[in-house]
Amino acid sequence: MNESTRRQFLKVSATTAVAAPAVLGLAQADGDTPPAPAANPAAAHEVTHRLARYIVNARYEDLPEGVRKEGTRTLLNWVGVAVGGSRHETITCAVSALAPFSGPPQAALLGRRERFDIMNAAFINGVSSHIFDYDDTHLKTIIHPAGPVVSAILALAEYHPVSGRDFLNALVLGIETSCRIGNAVYPNHYDVGWHITGTAGVFGAAAATGKVLGLNEQQMVWALGLAASQPVGLRESFGSMNKSFNPGRAASNGIFAALLASKNFTSSNGMIEAKRGWANTISTKQDYREITEDLGQRYEMALNTYKPFACGIVIHPAIDAAIRLRNQYQLTPGDIASVQLRVNPLVIELTGKKTPQEGLQGKFSVYHAVAVALIDGAAGEKQFSDRAVRDQKIMTLRDRVNATVDPTILPEQVDMTITLKDGRKLHQFIAHAIGSLEVPMTDQQLETKFTDLTEGILSAAQTRQLLKDCWQVAQLSDASLIAQAAVPQ
Amino acid sequence: MNESTRRQFLKVSATTAVAAPAVLGLAQADGDTPPAPAANPAAAHEVTHRLARYIVNARYEDLPEGVRKEGTRTLLNWVGVAVGGSRHETITCAVSALAPFSGPPQAALLGRRERFDIMNAAFINGVSSHIFDYDDTHLKTIIHPAGPVVSAILALAEYHPVSGRDFLNALVLGIETSCRIGNAVYPNHYDVGWHITGTAGVFGAAAATGKVLGLNEQQMVWALGLAASQPVGLRESFGSMNKSFNPGRAASNGIFAALLASKNFTSSNGMIEAKRGWANTISTKQDYREITEDLGQRYEMALNTYKPFACGIVIHPAIDAAIRLRNQYQLTPGDIASVQLRVNPLVIELTGKKTPQEGLQGKFSVYHAVAVALIDGAAGEKQFSDRAVRDQKIMTLRDRVNATVDPTILPEQVDMTITLKDGRKLHQFIAHAIGSLEVPMTDQQLETKFTDLTEGILSAAQTRQLLKDCWQVAQLSDASLIAQAAVPQ
Repeated sequence: MNESTRRQFLKVSATTAVAAPAVLGLAQADGDTPPAPAANPAAAHEVTHRLARYIVNARYEDLPEGVRKEGTRTLLNWVGVAVGGSRHETITCAVSALAPFSGPPQAALLGRRERFDIMNAAFINGVSSHIFDYDDTHLKTIIHPAGPVVSAILALAEYHPVSGRDFLNALVLGIETSCRIGNAVYPNHYDVGWHITGTAGVFGAAAATGKVLGLNEQQMVWALGLAASQPVGLRESFGSMNKSFNPGRAASNGIFAALLASKNFTSSNGMIEAKRGWANTISTKQDYREITEDLGQRYEMALNTYKPFACGIVIHPAIDAAIRLRNQYQLTPGDIASVQLRVNPLVIELTGKKTPQEGLQGKFSVYHAVAVALIDGAAGEKQFSDRAVRDQKIMTLRDRVNATVDPTILPEQVDMTITLKDGRKLHQFIAHAIGSLEVPMTDQQLETKFTDLTEGILSAAQTRQLLKDCWQVAQLSDASLIAQAAVPQ
Repeated sequence: MNESTRRQFLKVSATTAVAAPAVLGLAQADGDTPPAPAANPAAAHEVTHRLARYIVNARYEDLPEGVRKEGTRTLLNWVGVAVGGSRHETITCAVSALAPFSGPPQAALLGRRERFDIMNAAFINGVSSHIFDYDDTHLKTIIHPAGPVVSAILALAEYHPVSGRDFLNALVLGIETSCRIGNAVYPNHYDVGWHITGTAGVFGAAAATGKVLGLNEQQMVWALGLAASQPVGLRESFGSMNKSFNPGRAASNGIFAALLASKNFTSSNGMIEAKRGWANTISTKQDYREITEDLGQRYEMALNTYKPFACGIVIHPAIDAAIRLRNQYQLTPGDIASVQLRVNPLVIELTGKKTPQEGLQGKFSVYHAVAVALIDGAAGEKQFSDRAVRDQKIMTLRDRVNATVDPTILPEQVDMTITLKDGRKLHQFIAHAIGSLEVPMTDQQLETKFTDLTEGILSAAQTRQLLKDCWQVAQLSDASLIAQAAVPQ
């Protein structure tokens, strides 16, 4: 399904349409400086207020079934990656740094036994969920939307009880907020150097937290304003722990904003769209229609995607082809004489490492990725471990993988031919890899990914229960059950 | 003393000069993306590393006497405004929002009895110190440097013992860091909409905290990198509580960055100067020499100023003139027939309110300010209360104050003539008001401001002791004494 089909599919009836914006005429809060006029008065009219009004009023009952389902899949995927990352050195550092300063043990650190106050827990879980770069992706903006949003409200749910339905509604609204604000400034905002997951993510975390807390419209405006005051993350940090820091800090900043707003800590009224507001300060592009148009009618939530493989998206088609041929012909390494790939030039440019020495380097080797996928039928975090890249069987097969650059092959495509030792040739062309918008991961595939990630951290029985809780989130009377179920017993 | 004289005065011998930058050749941390090349390789060479190396190595013994003194005055001024703001509604909101989530009661909220963990305490104290917009100002950048820096290390001092000397050294280094980074991007960065106190302030808070914690050079680089990932504050928030939020959040973000770095939570190595680093992302001007030149030789710390009056700087000359004439001639309101001002056009544009109805509006009325200054001989927070603007005696005199716009009068000047009922005319021209770099507040004037601010919160005896502790900070064996002494007994 392409994006426009999908969008059309998700359009719902006019019953959920937002009323035409009324002039609010709200008094300026405690002001010594009048708000500056908006740069583009037409599109910029009351953007923050209109968004806040939508968030405050939107009900679970209004969500189309497909949106509820995608929100549930996003939750499940996020829980899996957060548990999976929880034993990484990055988390060990962060937990030891923050433990002496955390408040009451209000909320679980997923995959671990420590409990922190909700803001510190949200930070840790947000970091954990991004460590493998294996979380969800809103492809239009490259935002990883769950990290800031779900980290915030799952921690909050343990302090402030919320039903599964209201939780899922807040999750969807948080992701709508992040992705719509991201759309308004993308790509310029990203190009200049901001890590959009963190900068747009703070708004989503504040919106979702504020929804769970039951903020009124004015308080939600202030929460968004305090979120606008706390953007997180530069792309320059990619390659260090600081990258995972960004969604985590976006989560805790969003909670911080919403908690203050809930006690009537004020901000200005037009912090997103005002002349000196967030969008004008932080981007050279501002398309406010992306934020306010069709609220409650089209859902960015529905465009969320999940990575089936724990590496850059550019080698996903090759991995997909390898797994398909392996499964279809029940291949073993001994059967294979050589593998020939025709790939887009980007593949070699970004992932052309012939002899990776460490697990992380394996993620930048299309040769390793294809070899390990042919052997294991998977390309999860385990397949990019130090052990995997040094495995003799994998190294032997890796040396038989060849790649030819072909500009007629698009980045989302691959053309693979496997020559078997018995002389047969097997061919597979991939137009869109699994995990793309066109070929979404199936529920079963999401479960397999989840199970791989939680292995060694949660027992098989716990993993099964946690999967069940995630799928049934909308039926839970208390959403915090999910956080508790993600702690090793 | 003008700025260049002052700079010259503060230059010290070559013994404190920083060695020419060596190529560090540090391995890239855990990188999947090579660091982008710097935009201006010459000036941008290893900016973050050179700054970090300076901060890590700089000793109290290296500070010129004048810099130590200005650091002490900055501390004293900051303690006064933080105590003074502590009962404001803004603080009540924030304390009630955060109390359920705070960690152990590690650090005092100045002027109050609650204790929070160091990050939440630093936030509250940072907010408190900016509420009256009465804190210190680095005039070159309009940064209010103490808020982020002193809030951070005073809270930290209660958890991590530090001598007064080391505390003062960290304070100076934090303020150097904020103001030098601010210089590098000012005015473009401010013009586009950032509240530079918060954006540059995070670096200062991280640097000062990291200095107290004893970070090594690589850890300090990471602390600055994590600070770069957390800028705080937009000018659009001016006029709401969100303005004071900014220095407070800069303080807690800076601590957060340094604590993580102390446990080897990594960032990239060139987060200030890299192609996609902070300065290129957040500003259209980058002058890296402002950050790295003459480190340990010229001190931005020495250029800090303090407001004698609790209102915008543009009416300070008129207040200064009024107080001088009042004191010189021992004027009482009954003596005065009329007051004639010749002022720069900006004065009327910004503070031309004839009949203010509330205290805050009084800050935007040159008429009220002159009247209350003639009656009280002061223009502190009390003189801009609701009660003051509604006081009959002040209103009567206010109506006798006239102002004429005269473009030949510079913004920092005023020309005042008071006509007495006995026919005499008294004249006062102000070239630079008290509190400017040219006419700094005296120590005695800082004490009077301090005493006015703490009145009603601390006893007179406590205020005297606290003043003494601030002046003697360099002799304290434990700097946290100052925080404890600022809590009402």
